[in-house]
Amino acid sequence: MKYRAEITTELKPGMLDPEGATIQRALVHLGYNVTSVGTAKKLLIELEADGIDDARGMLDEMCKKMLANPVIHNYSIEVQ
Amino acid sequence: MKYRAEITTELKPGMLDPEGATIQRALVHLGYNVTSVGTAKKLLIELEADGIDDARGMLDEMCKKMLANPVIHNYSIEVQ
Repeated sequence: MKYRAEITTELKPGMLDPEGATIQRALVHLGYNVTSVGTAKKLLIELEADGIDDARGMLDEMCKKMLANPVIHNYSIEVQ
Repeated sequence: MKYRAEITTELKPGMLDPEGATIQRALVHLGYNVTSVGTAKKLLIELEADGIDDARGMLDEMCKKMLANPVIHNYSIEVQ
């Protein structure tokens, strides 16, 4: 069966996020009272799997093997 | 008051997504039956605003001015 999933990877708390910091400074320069900006990445994945648990297991493996760096990233998986 | 918001920008349907295509191929090489991968960006923003509507209005302006490219991106805003 076909499943659609969203994987979100974000930096662990305390990790430097220079892209977010740059965006925050730029928004302040534009006059907005923005106190913090963090960046995260979302992947929208369509995959074939035997069931929703199978899909979730494969997505977790993909994150561990390739999509996220467990040293610096937290990730979350949503399967529909 | 302080608000937290999530802005998600993703490519409009039909736009080429070479990063997603590369990830999809890599996952297939690892043996997963992945039929499509799309990439999107999430920004986690904390800002000061007079009310939730004010916050939403400012975030929409930020997207139009800087955070999204209206020619190629769709964006969505969630304020808490």
